[in-house]
Amino acid sequence: MAGNSFGQIFRITTFGESHGEAIGVIIDGCPAQLEVDLGYIQGELDKRRPGQSKITTQRKESDTVRILSGIFEGKTTGTPIAMLIPNEDQRSKDYTHNVDVFRPSHADYTYQVKYGIRDHRGGGRSSARETAARVAAGAIAKLLLKTQGIEIVAHVSSVGKINAPNVDYSNAQVFIEEREKNIVRCADPATAEEMIAHIDSIRKQGDTVGGKVSCYIINCPVGLGEPVFDKLHADLGKAMLSINAVHGFEYGSGFAGSEMRGSEHNDIFEKNAAGDIETQTNFSGGVQGGISNGMPIEFKVAFKPVATIMQSQPTVDSAGNTAEISGKGRHDPCVVPRAVPIVEAMAALVLADHWLRNRNSIL
Amino acid sequence: MAGNSFGQIFRITTFGESHGEAIGVIIDGCPAQLEVDLGYIQGELDKRRPGQSKITTQRKESDTVRILSGIFEGKTTGTPIAMLIPNEDQRSKDYTHNVDVFRPSHADYTYQVKYGIRDHRGGGRSSARETAARVAAGAIAKLLLKTQGIEIVAHVSSVGKINAPNVDYSNAQVFIEEREKNIVRCADPATAEEMIAHIDSIRKQGDTVGGKVSCYIINCPVGLGEPVFDKLHADLGKAMLSINAVHGFEYGSGFAGSEMRGSEHNDIFEKNAAGDIETQTNFSGGVQGGISNGMPIEFKVAFKPVATIMQSQPTVDSAGNTAEISGKGRHDPCVVPRAVPIVEAMAALVLADHWLRNRNSIL
Amino acid sequence: MAGNSFGQIFRITTFGESHGEAIGVIIDGCPAQLEVDLGYIQGELDKRRPGQSKITTQRKESDTVRILSGIFEGKTTGTPIAMLIPNEDQRSKDYTHNVDVFRPSHADYTYQVKYGIRDHRGGGRSSARETAARVAAGAIAKLLLKTQGIEIVAHVSSVGKINAPNVDYSNAQVFIEEREKNIVRCADPATAEEMIAHIDSIRKQGDTVGGKVSCYIINCPVGLGEPVFDKLHADLGKAMLSINAVHGFEYGSGFAGSEMRGSEHNDIFEKNAAGDIETQTNFSGGVQGGISNGMPIEFKVAFKPVATIMQSQPTVDSAGNTAEISGKGRHDPCVVPRAVPIVEAMAALVLADHWLRNRNSIL
Amino acid sequence: MAGNSFGQIFRITTFGESHGEAIGVIIDGCPAQLEVDLGYIQGELDKRRPGQSKITTQRKESDTVRILSGIFEGKTTGTPIAMLIPNEDQRSKDYTHNVDVFRPSHADYTYQVKYGIRDHRGGGRSSARETAARVAAGAIAKLLLKTQGIEIVAHVSSVGKINAPNVDYSNAQVFIEEREKNIVRCADPATAEEMIAHIDSIRKQGDTVGGKVSCYIINCPVGLGEPVFDKLHADLGKAMLSINAVHGFEYGSGFAGSEMRGSEHNDIFEKNAAGDIETQTNFSGGVQGGISNGMPIEFKVAFKPVATIMQSQPTVDSAGNTAEISGKGRHDPCVVPRAVPIVEAMAALVLADHWLRNRNSIL
Repeated sequence: MAGNSFGQIFRITTFGESHGEAIGVIIDGCPAQLEVDLGYIQGELDKRRPGQSKITTQRKESDTVRILSGIFEGKTTGTPIAMLIPNEDQRSKDYTHNVDVFRPSHADYTYQVKYGIRDHRGGGRSSARETAARVAAGAIAKLLLKTQGIEIVAHVSSVGKINAPNVDYSNAQVFIEEREKNIVRCADPATAEEMIAHIDSIRKQGDTVGGKVSCYIINCPVGLGEPVFDKLHADLGKAMLSINAVHGFEYGSGFAGSEMRGSEHNDIFEKNAAGDIETQTNFSGGVQGGISNGMPIEFKVAFKPVATIMQSQPTVDSAGNTAEISGKGRHDPCVVPRAVPIVEAMAALVLADHWLRNRNSIL
Repeated sequence: MAGNSFGQIFRITTFGESHGEAIGVIIDGCPAQLEVDLGYIQGELDKRRPGQSKITTQRKESDTVRILSGIFEGKTTGTPIAMLIPNEDQRSKDYTHNVDVFRPSHADYTYQVKYGIRDHRGGGRSSARETAARVAAGAIAKLLLKTQGIEIVAHVSSVGKINAPNVDYSNAQVFIEEREKNIVRCADPATAEEMIAHIDSIRKQGDTVGGKVSCYIINCPVGLGEPVFDKLHADLGKAMLSINAVHGFEYGSGFAGSEMRGSEHNDIFEKNAAGDIETQTNFSGGVQGGISNGMPIEFKVAFKPVATIMQSQPTVDSAGNTAEISGKGRHDPCVVPRAVPIVEAMAALVLADHWLRNRNSIL
Repeated sequence: MAGNSFGQIFRITTFGESHGEAIGVIIDGCPAQLEVDLGYIQGELDKRRPGQSKITTQRKESDTVRILSGIFEGKTTGTPIAMLIPNEDQRSKDYTHNVDVFRPSHADYTYQVKYGIRDHRGGGRSSARETAARVAAGAIAKLLLKTQGIEIVAHVSSVGKINAPNVDYSNAQVFIEEREKNIVRCADPATAEEMIAHIDSIRKQGDTVGGKVSCYIINCPVGLGEPVFDKLHADLGKAMLSINAVHGFEYGSGFAGSEMRGSEHNDIFEKNAAGDIETQTNFSGGVQGGISNGMPIEFKVAFKPVATIMQSQPTVDSAGNTAEISGKGRHDPCVVPRAVPIVEAMAALVLADHWLRNRNSIL
Repeated sequence: MAGNSFGQIFRITTFGESHGEAIGVIIDGCPAQLEVDLGYIQGELDKRRPGQSKITTQRKESDTVRILSGIFEGKTTGTPIAMLIPNEDQRSKDYTHNVDVFRPSHADYTYQVKYGIRDHRGGGRSSARETAARVAAGAIAKLLLKTQGIEIVAHVSSVGKINAPNVDYSNAQVFIEEREKNIVRCADPATAEEMIAHIDSIRKQGDTVGGKVSCYIINCPVGLGEPVFDKLHADLGKAMLSINAVHGFEYGSGFAGSEMRGSEHNDIFEKNAAGDIETQTNFSGGVQGGISNGMPIEFKVAFKPVATIMQSQPTVDSAGNTAEISGKGRHDPCVVPRAVPIVEAMAALVLADHWLRNRNSIL
């Protein structure tokens, strides 16, 4: 009800503020007997943690995860899995200047009015630090999906006005290896170079820039997604829009599809060499009537530029008086490189949940 | 769990197939003492019903709603409100040709695999007919919001590649009157004419075309939306993506915002003439940190072209054999004119729910 | 949230007031491909409907159920099943005397204060008429359970101070046949006679009397029920306590078990002739740690006497002034004979839900 | 879904096994601005912790709670409150004898079959240790209720066949002081002495005994509880039945009420000296139609005897072979003295949730 839980059967609840003692997550509803590789979970967190490269924030957090419950002798037991990530590099004093001043395009003002109180140290609960808990939970969802052969891969497809060409994602491992070769996490090497140079230049100007992440889900069986309100793409859309800084979501043909005609857009069914039904094109993005159709699921997520800039900006204080604010702290000039594992994690949470839900579609 | 319910406190559950006996909805959680105007509900349904004009389907359904419970002497009693809309014009024989053939870009194939059984008459549960139930429920949500001064207005902002300019929506009543003067439901008269001509031409070719609906929420108080997963725009996004044929959602600066810099994109706070805090620009689309900030909420929804075209198309049957299909029945050449009340209804359901949820933010 | 839904996966939502147009229920989450026998559902409703015998209310309602959706060619399709039961014998004028007077031990006063408005015709939503919707939904849950061999049987084990001896329930069909031979629905013929005479005598005095229903669940597999909060017996307890007039619930050894010693109470495990693990005694009532253990599930439900008596009673009106009230309308002198199918229905809803939930306990 | 969450608005999720690293709880949905006294929470935990007296288990656990999030400068912020209780005195070796043997009337067998895997150290998740997390969360619920004047008090009303007389509970503080004067937590001193002697004698025999806890909720406003399924007493019943070892629940007249006549049982309304409507008797136990009526809420909870006895018992191992088991570890001879704070905590969670839910009953 208060919005800190996600999922129906594979259900997570996250907690923690950026400058409190710890953040964490409980997964309730992970089936028993899943093998859990702690190294894999930590590896996913490492892709999200701050301080990875010159184009991410320079804050240092190891984001080391501890599992408190729900795993016994390397396997899930069916009981809640609690994971804890202690906060380490909390320079709360970086934020003392914010106590009474509302940072533009942050959540300071809205939290203050909604609750009449807020933890003003670094964004508190509205900080993107919360997404570390999602990545930890998403890693377990990915392990569950891997037992079914389902793979989820994402990369940075745009930074500002620089767009990557379409990249072949049919081999998940190759795609990820390619992507991880550069610090911007774009699977097209030439575009990656261009993006990095651009972000670096923006950073030097004390400014920030937005971007897009494209995500692909491979080997998804037919039948995932519930009709009407919990359509698979609707739950994916909500999952993505719940990530900090996301302003748009599209799947399949997306916004461009709204300019097409039916005769162009319809995906014609045919039987493939293996005898399976598939479609010639994939404007449906792998989802028809809200249910996966066996084709790759494709969607794109738009991130606005990070609101904290290293420039002076006018604003108001809590009394409504004019004030001046200038960014302190250590922030990302562009959020998308670190957003890639978050997008994958949220997609995994949606898919794991719908895979479990679909087990009850037929008697 | 099976996806036919929406909302947490103001919660609806819909039922019914396009060619069954009736469709309907139960609202559970509408507070007592709301005055309910049946004429208003029917008026909203009339905007969605088929057969309105030459550019919509020619099916005839009066979509007359009956309230079975929850209202006593013109007011809600706090008990569930059940509403029933009987199905009238069910030419099931229009669909006998579909029994064993999968229509391209419909939900026939995915339902068949998911459930191993489907009501093949006209789409069954996957038919957009289901949205009539949402419009009925949304009308009651709108009445609830009106008691707080909150207004929700939408119009067709694009058909194919024809885009309307920005239209002033500050006066909800004027905006709606202007929009209702033309059959395409665009609040800009000149663009409306162009759109109508385009749809009519597409229709004559036996083809269909996509479009976009823009929606605005006026007088929304600060504080609606829950942090983390149930961000206001995330719930709006899910609501919109759950509407048949929607392929994209963006709010505020949207996809274009991902190409901007932080220094351009940040919405600067200032005190307005009335002494209230507002922002100079509204790239945030009225939502910051997932919580409404008092500015108008702005979002856009992309609809793909209707999949049923009056042209012959190749496909497969349930055995995977090649087949031929050609559209019969009476379908919309462009879905957006009738989608306007659906977008408004879903937005109203989200806002009503979050308005009620927010009553418990502070002790 | 507003309390009109029950269940997690097999989830029902009921609606309707006793003197409105109709009552009904939506089942969301019944898996596809269940064969549905409408005659069976009506048969269950017939056991609950008024006017069955001299010891039940003389109101006449046929309680004829109509299925509006979710069934196609005799089978469930995975979409919501809506069922409607029109109200027929609404002598609303029987209740005009109640408009402004609070009937003792009814819900008039609490509804009035909670909502500030109430449908005063015959109890409105608080009427036991609402349970007809539960029986209809429960019948479908029973059909689902029957596919797994699970049977649920209940009977009247006490009326006032008259208690039936333990009756063998191992053969569900025989038990039900025996029970249905008498109008009080007690499976022990001698006790039944005594009970009927007692109720008849109470009725002639214009009074009412309470009683108990005992329920047994046979062939329940090991593993149903979720640890911690959703223990199987906790959900059964809530289900029973949600039935009108229920004041107590116990399972297995129940209240008497609290007077026992561990050495007497422990159920010793042993391997039976078929090689299955079972327990020598069943003080656990078929549930250990909240999870079914394969033994029969046994519980008992206590019903208070019906509050409407045919005698004059003092009370207050809405202004708090002293008033006099005397029972009109047609009411049951003892609720338990008609409560038997309700108890079974609620038990079936709990079991069907937990059977589906348990499918996801293991990967 | 997997049963580790409780409540709708004030919603808790617990995690942790008895012999894992820690147990804990997240509260999601506690409104902002509640003052939180950590000492009060610890005090409640101290009443539940092991090792308090000669009649409780001799295990030593300080049960020291740490708050990780959701509190800022002594007040709730509206964000999730995470609380952690590290496990200290884990003599896992006490349980090595149980690895492959099913303890009678424990959850070993049912967990093993349900999940195919179990943490066999001391009951794992099925251990009553989990209830410490409930007590911590319940303490915050109590603080919330205290702001409204609502008080919840419980005591041991029976041990085996020894029953306390009715005790005046109208002054919560006096009642608790009296109760805390003795180690069995019975508010009647003479009965307490008798109970203590009885438990001590049972303990010396290596046996255990059951008992009952009576609970009273004072100053509850009219209107709490939702009609139909989420009746206040139904949610209280589920809450109590979810506590380890509980086998029965009754409220108001309870099981005895089923033997009464309507003319005796009806609670007559009258206006009291203060001008409020109340009832002359309270057979309704403070709840009518599932909604609180302003009278004290009264209910009773029956606990079976603890299953671990210090005697040798026959059983089977996982292969179904006959085995012998004798209690080791340190266990309670009677669970009710330590159950008192758990009953109060669960009642507080139900009341806090329903108090928040009721804020939306009227527009």
